[in-house]
Amino acid sequence: MSKLTDVPKRILIGQALRSDKLGETLLPKRIALPVFASDPLSSVAYAPGEVLLVLSIAGVSAYHFSPWIAVAVVVLMFTVVASYRQNVRAYPSGGGDYEVATTNLGPKAGLTVASALLVDYVLTVAVSISSGVENLGSAIPFVVEHKLLCAVGAIVLLTLMNLRGVKESGKLFAIPTYLFVAGVFVMILWGAFRGLVLGDTMHAPTSDYEVRPEHQGLAGFALVFLLLRAFSSGCAALTGVEAISNGVPAFRKPKSKNAATTLAAMGLLAVTMFCGIIALAMATDVKMAENPAKDLVRDGTPVGAGFVQDPVISQVAAAVFGDGTFFFVVLAAATALVLFLAANTAYNGFPLLGSILAQDRYLPRQLHTRGDRLAFSNGIVLLAGAAILLVWIYGADSTRLIQLYIVGVFVAFTLSQTGMVRHWNRHLRTERDQAKRRHMVRSRAINAFGAFFTGLVLVVVLATKFSHGAWVALLGMVIFFGTMTAIRKHYDRVAEEIAASDEPSDETIRPSRVHSIVLVSKLHRPTLRALAYAKLVRSDQLEALSINVDPDETKALREDWERRGIDIPLKILDSPYREVTRPVIDYVKTLRKDRPRDVISVYIPEYVVGHWYEHLLHNQSALRLKGRLLFTPGVMVTSVPYQLESSEAAKVRARRRANWTAPGSVRRGPVERRHREPRDAHPREPHGKG
Amino acid sequence: MSKLTDVPKRILIGQALRSDKLGETLLPKRIALPVFASDPLSSVAYAPGEVLLVLSIAGVSAYHFSPWIAVAVVVLMFTVVASYRQNVRAYPSGGGDYEVATTNLGPKAGLTVASALLVDYVLTVAVSISSGVENLGSAIPFVVEHKLLCAVGAIVLLTLMNLRGVKESGKLFAIPTYLFVAGVFVMILWGAFRGLVLGDTMHAPTSDYEVRPEHQGLAGFALVFLLLRAFSSGCAALTGVEAISNGVPAFRKPKSKNAATTLAAMGLLAVTMFCGIIALAMATDVKMAENPAKDLVRDGTPVGAGFVQDPVISQVAAAVFGDGTFFFVVLAAATALVLFLAANTAYNGFPLLGSILAQDRYLPRQLHTRGDRLAFSNGIVLLAGAAILLVWIYGADSTRLIQLYIVGVFVAFTLSQTGMVRHWNRHLRTERDQAKRRHMVRSRAINAFGAFFTGLVLVVVLATKFSHGAWVALLGMVIFFGTMTAIRKHYDRVAEEIAASDEPSDETIRPSRVHSIVLVSKLHRPTLRALAYAKLVRSDQLEALSINVDPDETKALREDWERRGIDIPLKILDSPYREVTRPVIDYVKTLRKDRPRDVISVYIPEYVVGHWYEHLLHNQSALRLKGRLLFTPGVMVTSVPYQLESSEAAKVRARRRANWTAPGSVRRGPVERRHREPRDAHPREPHGKG
Repeated sequence: MSKLTDVPKRILIGQALRSDKLGETLLPKRIALPVFASDPLSSVAYAPGEVLLVLSIAGVSAYHFSPWIAVAVVVLMFTVVASYRQNVRAYPSGGGDYEVATTNLGPKAGLTVASALLVDYVLTVAVSISSGVENLGSAIPFVVEHKLLCAVGAIVLLTLMNLRGVKESGKLFAIPTYLFVAGVFVMILWGAFRGLVLGDTMHAPTSDYEVRPEHQGLAGFALVFLLLRAFSSGCAALTGVEAISNGVPAFRKPKSKNAATTLAAMGLLAVTMFCGIIALAMATDVKMAENPAKDLVRDGTPVGAGFVQDPVISQVAAAVFGDGTFFFVVLAAATALVLFLAANTAYNGFPLLGSILAQDRYLPRQLHTRGDRLAFSNGIVLLAGAAILLVWIYGADSTRLIQLYIVGVFVAFTLSQTGMVRHWNRHLRTERDQAKRRHMVRSRAINAFGAFFTGLVLVVVLATKFSHGAWVALLGMVIFFGTMTAIRKHYDRVAEEIAASDEPSDETIRPSRVHSIVLVSKLHRPTLRALAYAKLVRSDQLEALSINVDPDETKALREDWERRGIDIPLKILDSPYREVTRPVIDYVKTLRKDRPRDVISVYIPEYVVGHWYEHLLHNQSALRLKGRLLFTPGVMVTSVPYQLESSEAAKVRARRRANWTAPGSVRRGPVERRHREPRDAHPREPHGKG
Repeated sequence: MSKLTDVPKRILIGQALRSDKLGETLLPKRIALPVFASDPLSSVAYAPGEVLLVLSIAGVSAYHFSPWIAVAVVVLMFTVVASYRQNVRAYPSGGGDYEVATTNLGPKAGLTVASALLVDYVLTVAVSISSGVENLGSAIPFVVEHKLLCAVGAIVLLTLMNLRGVKESGKLFAIPTYLFVAGVFVMILWGAFRGLVLGDTMHAPTSDYEVRPEHQGLAGFALVFLLLRAFSSGCAALTGVEAISNGVPAFRKPKSKNAATTLAAMGLLAVTMFCGIIALAMATDVKMAENPAKDLVRDGTPVGAGFVQDPVISQVAAAVFGDGTFFFVVLAAATALVLFLAANTAYNGFPLLGSILAQDRYLPRQLHTRGDRLAFSNGIVLLAGAAILLVWIYGADSTRLIQLYIVGVFVAFTLSQTGMVRHWNRHLRTERDQAKRRHMVRSRAINAFGAFFTGLVLVVVLATKFSHGAWVALLGMVIFFGTMTAIRKHYDRVAEEIAASDEPSDETIRPSRVHSIVLVSKLHRPTLRALAYAKLVRSDQLEALSINVDPDETKALREDWERRGIDIPLKILDSPYREVTRPVIDYVKTLRKDRPRDVISVYIPEYVVGHWYEHLLHNQSALRLKGRLLFTPGVMVTSVPYQLESSEAAKVRARRRANWTAPGSVRRGPVERRHREPRDAHPREPHGKG
């Protein structure tokens, strides 16, 4: 093909494929890491603080347990990462926790995981935004003074962006995430250099505060319980680790291997940052209290309600870089930005999970269609509404919201890992290759340990946090579970009702005749078109029907009809109360009663308009009538559209809408098969002349 | 026919005619009076007070002008009544002010009247409810302490009642209206008896108060202006007089004569009550002030903001019967009730006028259908919303609301009477019978005087009240006028666009072939039905089309298709992004491009469900697709409904809705022609075999 003819074609195809293009871009590891890791990495902005906060209940002396808790979190992180590396290898098609649990443990386990994840998406938004506002507030006081307003504003902004359909691009994620990671590492290294090499003593803004312990001299079971609670809070660092397992198809080849490597890199980064921040917090004497107003004491007096307890990461940054310095502000901004990105991942993950659930008929079918804007919008609004509600109730306080957060993640972790154990068991039953068997046994051991450990953590989280708010998350899960079960039941019932039996039934016995009726009010172009179309489709009987609501108009219609010599009989029904619907319905019923095996085909000329308000002015009677006719058995209703000039505007809008790409496409990866030419199951043949 | 077979038939017919029955009950005068007069009669509850209130600006000494103002109001009332007696005679079909103005003065005048009346309906609700609450409050202090809340609550209650569709029955109106009239007459007679015969001195609760004049010793033009303002306020007694002229068809025969008699009776009752109350107010030394808190003085000190100024009628009742006595409470209750009924008349009048305006295409066509519940509901909600807004803004203060009220009525009066003069002029041009001519000349004189007098009052009202609030009413009229003009323009533009020319056009040239496509996802009953129907309607080409969103489902469909041996070719289109709409649209466009004169007929199997939430679970993709297909020229879309079991519930609801009677039927009267058997314009003949 010559170059000259190629250009217009390329432009055309480029145009036509535009909406598909995004999905076809596979992610290199350096881009995949920020795309998937903004959520887990951003949690180091709040997780270390939560650990200190809980420990402070037993007084500052309890802070010396924090390295041990950090170690426990690190071990857990390695366990979870190792476990999910098995997942991504076993399910290269992108087996998320829902799929793994459903396949291996049955639909109820799968639905439980799905409910947990849906709740978690809501909490990701609520927690990340609240924490982002707190971090931004450490640099810009206005933000923290109007915390709730800013948090709600940020959610609304994210929602609008996602409703408009911002494309999720790798770069958008890469820059803030790497900036954040680099910032934290610079801080850790510079802090270590100042402390260990220069011998500087660094002081956090709260270093000269005292913490009044709520419980003096805790020991025995009470102390263990407190340490477990601190550990539970630290587990917030693990949220979002599972996201990669959904996104394997988005990686470059070898997909599974690259995904596993990215997972490992992410785990390593997360634990390093987590431990570094804890270490710096200890070195700079950060003080955190659960109720700072009461328990944080300066010069013998509590700081009171006006005090704002800045996040650990910003206190450490103030100690290392100096409060208000360039580096301090950059890190605060990067932290806030990466937290907002983390919130944004929920906007992508929610409809993705929704589409998978819709495929299994737990949610309305239309969610299954990728890029269905309306369905996507509904999901986004639901997500945003629930997140705003939580932020409102909990005053955008990340500490209180985190109590709700971790339950869902660990439900998903535990069930997914248990499912993986079953997966390996099943494969071991048939696998004969000894090398592969050894590999599988090793994987099973990892997953079994993962299941055990995450299950243990789940019990710990439930035990230590239930009354602190975890019950809210459980309630949310129950509601999602119940709704989805009900939807599935409805679909199953309908499927049974409409299933075609093999015996001849109403539907397979061919009805005898078709009686066509064209509804007519005036002889204008839409009516003439409907009459022409109805004649073209050959039926056994064809008549035009007009309802006499105004004698003058009816007379004019009749005269026009005869003048034009239209060869279709015109029937006129009187309607003393100027109703349109009832006389038509009654007439159709009479026809059906006279000849029960006839099918009545009703043609309705319809205006196609371009603006919503024009709908109020047109077609209302037609719509009402159509709605009623559909309830009448043996009737079909044909709309014969007439495109008014104003409909051009709506056509353009509809086309633009069709080319819209749903956010979340990057992480979903491309679909397997490519677009092919339409193909026929039977050879084409003219039909219907018989 | 035997009696036995008659019974079931009568039951059936009785059932079938139920919704028509109401309209067929013609009103005797004794019922027609309360139905139409609750609005004008109830205004004597506030009109006398408004007169005193305005006069008080010049001090109590100005009260001695009140009899003269009463006389002016009486003369005006007789003029208006006499004028409308000509209307009901000239337009026995129920020529309301809108019709009279449109017919005789042209559409712009008609639309002005319509706008004025629509604004007036809103104000009738706002003023009557506010005044009703004030009257009820004179007996039950709680009501007046929570005036705004009670007023809004009453409007909401009325709205809900009307949305549910309470039937307007003559009795409902008769009892409170006659109770009110009787109560006022007993009060006037008993007061006259006590004062004139027994020689009692009766004291109103405010008799020993003083009024501090805002302007001492007004004279000359300022005094005349004040008197004119007092007169304008008194004109509130005339609102609603025009209602009978819409309702002539609801009267028993001789309709016009009975309507005229009822009008006269109503006028007589109204002026007697109005004058009686003014006289009693003077005799019992009622004091009213425009700003009671400041200008009403007791023992030298203003009464202050906590003082509640009771309506004149209740102050007079307290003086005549004694405060809190049985008669006092009964009269207060009857007054409140008749005022609520007056507000209710607006709920009936608003959709009635809307239906007439819709017929002239100033409002959406579907409003024209009598008893169209949805359209009716929209009108009711609009009316209630506007009334609540006004009540809210003006603090449910009837005095402030009345400033807005009278403009609209007098615009309607003046234009209607001017129109009547033209009406007689036109008839006099052709009438030769001398007796009839004399009668017409006399009628013309009455209407001319009516037009002159009401026009003068309109000027007075505008001059004295413009800055007090009449501008709000004018603004409302302008908004209604503008909206309705825009709607009419839109309809006219569309009518021009779709008008069929006599030359052959796209619509009259018969398209060449029809290519039918049945959309298929699975082979269940709805699909089988759609396939059977599509085959029955013979088209030139018929094929089934399925979109491959899931390879397994598509494979199952293909196998099922072959197993059942369906003789329709099945085409399968791939959709890599699981979209349904786009591949279908693209395919249809390709077909159209290949054979531009083909018509594409798309059959969509649809589920008919019974609950709104089921709509979320079904047909969404079908609806979306249908919406997009309608924008494609040369396409028709056929819905083949499959009634799910749950649709039974909706069918029952729809039937109930169809039997619903719109409030306002009583005053509208029955329509002229009766329900006839369907008749054919052409003899019936089988058609479409050719």
